[in-house]
Amino acid sequence: MKLFVIGFGSGEKKHMTQQAVSALQQSDLVIGYTTYIEILKKDFPDLHYLATPMRKEIDRCKMAVQETLKNQTVALVSSGDSGIYGMAGILLEIVHEMQMENQIEIEIVPGITAASLAASVLGAPLMHDFAVISLSDLLTPLELIYKRIVCAAQADFVICLYNPKSRTRTEYLAQATDLIMQYQSPDTPVGIVRNAGRTDQTVWMTTLRKLKNQPVDMFCIVIIGNSQSYFQKQEQKIYMITPRGYPL
Amino acid sequence: MKLFVIGFGSGEKKHMTQQAVSALQQSDLVIGYTTYIEILKKDFPDLHYLATPMRKEIDRCKMAVQETLKNQTVALVSSGDSGIYGMAGILLEIVHEMQMENQIEIEIVPGITAASLAASVLGAPLMHDFAVISLSDLLTPLELIYKRIVCAAQADFVICLYNPKSRTRTEYLAQATDLIMQYQSPDTPVGIVRNAGRTDQTVWMTTLRKLKNQPVDMFCIVIIGNSQSYFQKQEQKIYMITPRGYPL
Repeated sequence: MKLFVIGFGSGEKKHMTQQAVSALQQSDLVIGYTTYIEILKKDFPDLHYLATPMRKEIDRCKMAVQETLKNQTVALVSSGDSGIYGMAGILLEIVHEMQMENQIEIEIVPGITAASLAASVLGAPLMHDFAVISLSDLLTPLELIYKRIVCAAQADFVICLYNPKSRTRTEYLAQATDLIMQYQSPDTPVGIVRNAGRTDQTVWMTTLRKLKNQPVDMFCIVIIGNSQSYFQKQEQKIYMITPRGYPL
Repeated sequence: MKLFVIGFGSGEKKHMTQQAVSALQQSDLVIGYTTYIEILKKDFPDLHYLATPMRKEIDRCKMAVQETLKNQTVALVSSGDSGIYGMAGILLEIVHEMQMENQIEIEIVPGITAASLAASVLGAPLMHDFAVISLSDLLTPLELIYKRIVCAAQADFVICLYNPKSRTRTEYLAQATDLIMQYQSPDTPVGIVRNAGRTDQTVWMTTLRKLKNQPVDMFCIVIIGNSQSYFQKQEQKIYMITPRGYPL
């Protein structure tokens, strides 16, 4: 009895690994949040799906375990990388709590995380050390999030913000921006990618100074440059680049 | 005339995206560091390759541009994600310097970065905010690297170390470990993966206290947990987990 925990990248088949495709195709049942299931159905219409509501991660994991115990191969799916703010951790915790470690074989299938997808669209903003921070305070105290923002800015990390905004959390991005501007120039380049890697992807670039006025939502990844990042402006295109430091 | 900048993940075909495979197959010429070319040849024996020495990144980029200008489709390859310590940045810089932006179409093809591969093997160490830091001081002042180490530890980030050691840089990992232990417990879990995702992969777990005595080399990724990370010990297996914070 096997349970795959799959990160499927953007959801477009081209961003899935061979391993993720193969794991999906081996699975008797694919379980995930409704939005993700809808994305997968486009490229894999013939799989057997079970869609579950948002924020019910614990229930979804228990369901995945129970379905696997029916002698099935099951895939628990999420976008990006299953190992970065994904389902891998909570699934391992639940399996342990249910004392099912010896009944179920678990395979964690990594995927391309949203930061990588967004970076590839923006140019090359992640060529140097970076910090990945989620602005969601559903499970993390806001003070700890802000402390991480401050320390990342102090140390001149490129900063990737996941979950930069939701309907209820509208002020955190502005507050984070103000904190970062205590250490970094207001002219620091910022790249924003909404639905990174998907057909309805949108991309825009701005600066720290103007970040708080951008129409950012929960489908966006925000990448804030370090002190060396710059925009390379061409006739048709703008790239956001953080130099690694090669002497040119 | 098209130039792909491809991250091919571990090098095993199963960790490549559909997009990376397709880009390779479209390419008249594949350019990369010798070791990477040898890895690719296993799964793609029929491609036309040009192997270049290590550390000659600027020459490799110029060569890729020149070959593309011969009216060819060229792939510039590296392991992991082309956008994370990869070739995307220096290539964009070189193309701009050579004033070839309008002659060449560039497509950056993201891949699974080593941190994701290593995390999937260790369990789920990257479920919470993390910092990615390279310990190579070839292009970065050592003081800045250490400053980032300290700030990341202060803010209780999970820390992923790339390039943790080389033949000439043998002391930095020990020094980084001592810096982190000023803020984090010596019992903090640490996972080490050598050749992540490859057939000759090795994995081991230790703690901060013992990290400096581990046989780490440049093929390793080191993931140091945050204050909440723990080892989940089972009969047959140990997982390294950083909880997201779901109430169980």
